[in-house]
Amino acid sequence: NDAAREAGIIADVTVDVDPGGHRSGITPGEPALTLAQLVDRLNNLRLRGILCYDGGSQHVSGFAARRTQAIERLAPAAETFSRMQQSGLNVEIFSGGGTGTYNIDHATPGFTDIQSGSYVFMDASYLGIGGQDNDEVYGDFKPSLTILTTVLNAQYEGRATTDAGAKSCTINRPWSIVVGETGMSYTSGSDEYGTIRYENPSRVYQAGDRLELIISHCDPVVNLYDKMYAIRNNRVEAVWRIAGRGKNQ
Amino acid sequence: NDAAREAGIIADVTVDVDPGGHRSGITPGEPALTLAQLVDRLNNLRLRGILCYDGGSQHVSGFAARRTQAIERLAPAAETFSRMQQSGLNVEIFSGGGTGTYNIDHATPGFTDIQSGSYVFMDASYLGIGGQDNDEVYGDFKPSLTILTTVLNAQYEGRATTDAGAKSCTINRPWSIVVGETGMSYTSGSDEYGTIRYENPSRVYQAGDRLELIISHCDPVVNLYDKMYAIRNNRVEAVWRIAGRGKNQ
Repeated sequence: NDAAREAGIIADVTVDVDPGGHRSGITPGEPALTLAQLVDRLNNLRLRGILCYDGGSQHVSGFAARRTQAIERLAPAAETFSRMQQSGLNVEIFSGGGTGTYNIDHATPGFTDIQSGSYVFMDASYLGIGGQDNDEVYGDFKPSLTILTTVLNAQYEGRATTDAGAKSCTINRPWSIVVGETGMSYTSGSDEYGTIRYENPSRVYQAGDRLELIISHCDPVVNLYDKMYAIRNNRVEAVWRIAGRGKNQ
Repeated sequence: NDAAREAGIIADVTVDVDPGGHRSGITPGEPALTLAQLVDRLNNLRLRGILCYDGGSQHVSGFAARRTQAIERLAPAAETFSRMQQSGLNVEIFSGGGTGTYNIDHATPGFTDIQSGSYVFMDASYLGIGGQDNDEVYGDFKPSLTILTTVLNAQYEGRATTDAGAKSCTINRPWSIVVGETGMSYTSGSDEYGTIRYENPSRVYQAGDRLELIISHCDPVVNLYDKMYAIRNNRVEAVWRIAGRGKNQ
């Protein structure tokens, strides 16, 4: 409030409510309500509602288990939202949900926003959680983000070495997926090198061959790059600067 | 050779020899010797020697085990180097070794370069391998690289949430170490949030408190930042641009 007054503005505020992961936010119920009332009383703040991002539910494997957990964990926030409305507070916004629960979140009463973002790119982590109609692969959204890499060494039995390692792909799990191939797994334990291990490979690479990877986890991987090439029908249509890259500094 | 001729230069070449990890390089012995002779015959290449970086030995836990493995794995390269010398080839360079084996590498005959780099910064991975005089901590080099982070949420029992997650620290293991504290462990499973879990903590943090982390693995973490602040006696003496950041693109 002091900072807003000094800046000569009325700042919009949503109260961050903890969905039980104890990562960020205030405890739902009385503590959240008290905080919302305080925001409402202060002259340079304008209460807009609450947000409750339940990151912990987004990657739960299996649709039924994910549904149960997501709805259960948002219930206290939904109740808090309802109590805020009944207290006459201005609560236009109740934001939460995400890519893993986008088709579950409508079951939470009062939700006004779904914070789905990863669905645009998808990644190996999300593909692995399983969808409503497919326990194995979450196929509601198609992967659109890949990394192009080159094979540097293919002389050893059962493996090939590429030029994309931890600095290109992170070492998040599950590992990246080689586009269009089966029976091989990619790992990025080295800083500069990636490894492909053949189990029952659909093909074997030669040095100089290029391949595409569906990356493990889109957020930290996008953060490794300065720009992104937007491709349609095998043509680069645009080069996008990644505006948020490195902004954790 | 063709590319060097087109560019109108004589290119210096070292033959990359595989230390048994099958990640990069050619097989030592006959294959490496044959390749070196080919390089020697081509007009626009100048053979300078061999390199044999044994990344797999750098992080072996325990000095004795590390010493045994490093010497064993470099022996075929040392023999190749010696055969190249005996064949009258120009081999001024025999490069390998690293931060984990810097005081072992002198035992490999012919070594001219030690590729130690991480010793400048150190990290939690290297601290964990144990030194010659200390099985627990590799204390030959002091950590000089830390990340400054702020506590965002401290209201939950047994933990605190910081503003440094996977995009600041990676999720490499072992986890980062909180400077000056004991009985707590830092994890960075979230993209934007880091977690501190208290076991038997030397202190408990409040929201807004700052803390420093010795990062997990210096190479991919440095790659996340555009600049580095060089500090002496609590004063910033220089700001260094990280020239190689993002160059995997």
